[in-house]
Amino acid sequence: MAKRVSIVMGSDSDLPVMEKAAGILQEFGIGYEMRVLSAHRTPEETSEYARTAAGRGFAVIIAGAGMSAALPGVVAAQTELPVIGVPVYGQKLGGVDALYAIAQMPPGVPVASVGIDAAVNAALLAVRILALSDPELVKKLEAYRDSAREKVLNKDRMMQEKAAE
Amino acid sequence: MAKRVSIVMGSDSDLPVMEKAAGILQEFGIGYEMRVLSAHRTPEETSEYARTAAGRGFAVIIAGAGMSAALPGVVAAQTELPVIGVPVYGQKLGGVDALYAIAQMPPGVPVASVGIDAAVNAALLAVRILALSDPELVKKLEAYRDSAREKVLNKDRMMQEKAAE
Amino acid sequence: MAKRVSIVMGSDSDLPVMEKAAGILQEFGIGYEMRVLSAHRTPEETSEYARTAAGRGFAVIIAGAGMSAALPGVVAAQTELPVIGVPVYGQKLGGVDALYAIAQMPPGVPVASVGIDAAVNAALLAVRILALSDPELVKKLEAYRDSAREKVLNKDRMMQEKAAE
Amino acid sequence: MAKRVSIVMGSDSDLPVMEKAAGILQEFGIGYEMRVLSAHRTPEETSEYARTAAGRGFAVIIAGAGMSAALPGVVAAQTELPVIGVPVYGQKLGGVDALYAIAQMPPGVPVASVGIDAAVNAALLAVRILALSDPELVKKLEAYRDSAREKVLNKDRMMQEKAAE
Amino acid sequence: MAKRVSIVMGSDSDLPVMEKAAGILQEFGIGYEMRVLSAHRTPEETSEYARTAAGRGFAVIIAGAGMSAALPGVVAAQTELPVIGVPVYGQKLGGVDALYAIAQMPPGVPVASVGIDAAVNAALLAVRILALSDPELVKKLEAYRDSAREKVLNKDRMMQEKAAE
Amino acid sequence: MAKRVSIVMGSDSDLPVMEKAAGILQEFGIGYEMRVLSAHRTPEETSEYARTAAGRGFAVIIAGAGMSAALPGVVAAQTELPVIGVPVYGQKLGGVDALYAIAQMPPGVPVASVGIDAAVNAALLAVRILALSDPELVKKLEAYRDSAREKVLNKDRMMQEKAAE
Amino acid sequence: MAKRVSIVMGSDSDLPVMEKAAGILQEFGIGYEMRVLSAHRTPEETSEYARTAAGRGFAVIIAGAGMSAALPGVVAAQTELPVIGVPVYGQKLGGVDALYAIAQMPPGVPVASVGIDAAVNAALLAVRILALSDPELVKKLEAYRDSAREKVLNKDRMMQEKAAE
Amino acid sequence: MAKRVSIVMGSDSDLPVMEKAAGILQEFGIGYEMRVLSAHRTPEETSEYARTAAGRGFAVIIAGAGMSAALPGVVAAQTELPVIGVPVYGQKLGGVDALYAIAQMPPGVPVASVGIDAAVNAALLAVRILALSDPELVKKLEAYRDSAREKVLNKDRMMQEKAAE
Repeated sequence: MAKRVSIVMGSDSDLPVMEKAAGILQEFGIGYEMRVLSAHRTPEETSEYARTAAGRGFAVIIAGAGMSAALPGVVAAQTELPVIGVPVYGQKLGGVDALYAIAQMPPGVPVASVGIDAAVNAALLAVRILALSDPELVKKLEAYRDSAREKVLNKDRMMQEKAAE
Repeated sequence: MAKRVSIVMGSDSDLPVMEKAAGILQEFGIGYEMRVLSAHRTPEETSEYARTAAGRGFAVIIAGAGMSAALPGVVAAQTELPVIGVPVYGQKLGGVDALYAIAQMPPGVPVASVGIDAAVNAALLAVRILALSDPELVKKLEAYRDSAREKVLNKDRMMQEKAAE
Repeated sequence: MAKRVSIVMGSDSDLPVMEKAAGILQEFGIGYEMRVLSAHRTPEETSEYARTAAGRGFAVIIAGAGMSAALPGVVAAQTELPVIGVPVYGQKLGGVDALYAIAQMPPGVPVASVGIDAAVNAALLAVRILALSDPELVKKLEAYRDSAREKVLNKDRMMQEKAAE
Repeated sequence: MAKRVSIVMGSDSDLPVMEKAAGILQEFGIGYEMRVLSAHRTPEETSEYARTAAGRGFAVIIAGAGMSAALPGVVAAQTELPVIGVPVYGQKLGGVDALYAIAQMPPGVPVASVGIDAAVNAALLAVRILALSDPELVKKLEAYRDSAREKVLNKDRMMQEKAAE
Repeated sequence: MAKRVSIVMGSDSDLPVMEKAAGILQEFGIGYEMRVLSAHRTPEETSEYARTAAGRGFAVIIAGAGMSAALPGVVAAQTELPVIGVPVYGQKLGGVDALYAIAQMPPGVPVASVGIDAAVNAALLAVRILALSDPELVKKLEAYRDSAREKVLNKDRMMQEKAAE
Repeated sequence: MAKRVSIVMGSDSDLPVMEKAAGILQEFGIGYEMRVLSAHRTPEETSEYARTAAGRGFAVIIAGAGMSAALPGVVAAQTELPVIGVPVYGQKLGGVDALYAIAQMPPGVPVASVGIDAAVNAALLAVRILALSDPELVKKLEAYRDSAREKVLNKDRMMQEKAAE
Repeated sequence: MAKRVSIVMGSDSDLPVMEKAAGILQEFGIGYEMRVLSAHRTPEETSEYARTAAGRGFAVIIAGAGMSAALPGVVAAQTELPVIGVPVYGQKLGGVDALYAIAQMPPGVPVASVGIDAAVNAALLAVRILALSDPELVKKLEAYRDSAREKVLNKDRMMQEKAAE
Repeated sequence: MAKRVSIVMGSDSDLPVMEKAAGILQEFGIGYEMRVLSAHRTPEETSEYARTAAGRGFAVIIAGAGMSAALPGVVAAQTELPVIGVPVYGQKLGGVDALYAIAQMPPGVPVASVGIDAAVNAALLAVRILALSDPELVKKLEAYRDSAREKVLNKDRMMQEKAAE
């Protein structure tokens, strides 16, 4: 299976958050790689990674980082692929530092920020992007949406039934 | 020219911000429409808009809104297209209200947030997404990046020359 | 007993907060329903729910949601009933995201925000509204207020007695 | 015309914000009074005001205040009427101080907070409450909503026409 | 022993914080009372309390409250005594709501805010005020300060000795 | 006239704010001095100032500073007099930096914080403290309060009369 | 004159802030260069710049940037020189975004953050570092400090004299 | 071994954070002392400490403090040595109070702020400063950086290998 999405994180301590993105991609049958690279500790490898990502066949990059969270922006600066940033929660500032660092990019270098720790949504955004050229994925997205809808409606029914008793 | 990107804003007061997205798309030769629709004032038309966007040939939606900023999320809830949200600045909370409303989406319904008033980056993100199936756009993105790079390098040279005098 | 208040929440994870509203309504002998509906996962059902609420005999809607918290606003956009929003606490931003999303509605579509997790106050606000046409409820509100007052005065007496020992 | 809504503000410097509430009430043909009373500078008169409001025929109180913004809560503590609080913008903290003071009421004493400076929404919320026992107001609310909807749709049409040229 | 300081709190849940103020006053041999009174739940008793405090012989009032924290301001509005406010921590907003509510009083009605949960400093501030007319208290404050200084110097010595080993 | 209150500010740029404190003291007939001393630029003179303030006859110190705002705390650390801190507004952080620096003092060294730029309240707090041993000041405070009350009531009357026309 | 300090900024729009650093260095007779380089728009040149800075004779780097402000961290990641970051003010978030991005660096890659727009302090910090091996600079720092102290004392004298008149 | 870095903290409760700085200095073979001194509880000793630090042979001061965090600034005001401030986390405001107090110093008195609890980076910054006149330290910094880089690359390899299985 061709790998279409590259998930990269600034530290392996981000793994519990970022593996949720992997889980979604598996669910949609999309090949991915998972990498640990740091804008600050491995700048050369990060540049190399970003510059070669398109050539290695990837279509979307999901980059998660906490605190100063430079990784998504630094990667976006060295590729033309769409880059999705996941601000990772930290106890001190609740993840607002990472959210600001990822969202407040300068004009010219776009990063798509999702919410704090929202790796699931990062992956679903990647799926939506890939689905633009893959009608099978559109169907899977519709089914996923139907299933999410059904779960809510079931909860709603259960709550109403419980009240009726 | 086929319209590939739909730019929608919650109020025509968002136009000075959102037309910068249009400017970028023109620069890249990408067809777009500009719409005013409100999640709160025109909920039916907004639903209709979101549900038909893919069928009308659009590939990416850019949605800008201020304050409670429900528009990007409400649109994302009713399409499988990737939706990019632009939090619009407001004097009272500086746009943090809109940034939170757009970034902090619940799991299952992704929105790609850019920075406050960052319509330029929203458009560039749309271009990156479209470029996945359009090699011409990749070249234009590279040229755009080169040009941005050149501008910085020129400023750098000018500053050094000025100092040398 | 006719149901006058509809309590709706964006996720069943909001139930521990929102059932406190139900408890207050029971205490005041006011009929209510509890629903789970999501602005983002069940947009059609949410529209249907909002549009039919008045016709189904409800007078007030209490809507609780966390994070991007679009539910109260989306409901308020599709009914003429007064809508009370309960911002639900989240670990990452402490509920400020939900408070902003619920309070900072655009002009034209009002939502009555209470405090973070303040489902008790949401219910009491609903009772005050219903009491405008129900003198019995006014008496009950006075009794509730007297009882709250008595509790404080008892604590005050106990503290003074303890000090006197 | 009977006065049904009492608008009270903590300082006459709040008038430019609060008179927008009066404008909406006039538009809906609802009688109102406008008062200046301060929880801190006229505590006795504020108590007297709150305690007599129901007896004087009022159904809803709209209370606006900035900074520490105790007025809405202090009024709500001494009436059974629904109280709507308007946090008034201040340059130093952008109105967040007033928003917190109005929204974060203790359990037992509800205040309905609208957004910062959102006196228009405060008035519309009052109309929704009054409309529960006044079918004419429901029709006016529907017309108001239709008109707001039409304004957005007109802007949308104009934007599309302008693009078509 | 004459009671000179009145400690009042908005809820007995504030007691674990506020009893630290009592501890300091005991240490300085200053008589005090502890009261529970709520600006919102017992407004009349709170007014009565504030208006009679000077006549009952008190010189300083320490008022602690969380969230919307109207108590210190409402008390200050009805007495000429100096009022010290203690913003009490809350999980949702970390006490910033209470700090803003206590510090951001309108011009004309002063409250002396200390830090979040800083009942110790509230009491020490009361002691400083009482010491203006009580030279014994000045000596005790000097001794307290010397003792605090000694504790730091001891820690400093211990740390240096430990390093020398 | 004996000088009882010392007003000190960290920079003469704080004068427009701090001279409002002087105005209030003049109104109450209280002698004061105004000083410019910086915790960071004149640490020795600041220490000297704080240590000698009581001996020079002062009873209360009002210290205003912006940004890191160490002055009130550093003064409070070297005197037993009550110290009132005025956080001075700054464009970048709106004065929150100064408010935190002044309010969040460590246990043992109390500072009485008023609101951002609230030099008027700082002075009134000083008057309340001095009034504890000066019945004339109590009367003046009562008159001041009556006058503030009258101003609000006049505004209230004017607003009602204007409406009656 | 050998250049010892390199001042780099992410955009020439940062120049009005950053040239204050140059002014201080001139005052101390320290050679410097001023550069414009962007972590996001010129990543290769920024890497090259950082990697060669020590070899080109520089001892300290001052890096200013706004918003996502990755520049100081990215530079610090590729040099062993001390890097001082200047968070540049922006209207939307007041510079808090840049402050967080510069201060909240991950362990292992230190950046010395000064305050928002505090280029003067960044330069003085650089002077202190250079002074460790240059006794002349120590004397100049002492003179600078004396001069700053004198300015405050002069303001203090003027204020006291004005009062004495 | 000569002591080159002085680590000072405002309270021994800061030790668990600050001893990480000591650990780094040990790793680099740099002599240091650890002190407890409080700007507020031991102002004279703190002045003495700051004024004599250079004479006692120290080159860099690392000062950690929480809340109002005056220590780093007060020390910086009385020495010409570079001072690095470590804002220490506190539950109530998450360390933002300390970060603001340390970063937002007035022009003229520089403090180098690192992130909240970032004592490791404070120490590494000190090493970078000392390395300016000690080529051995440059080599150690390079080795430290290589080691940090290797750790990330190892994690990256492990993650890829695990995926390949």
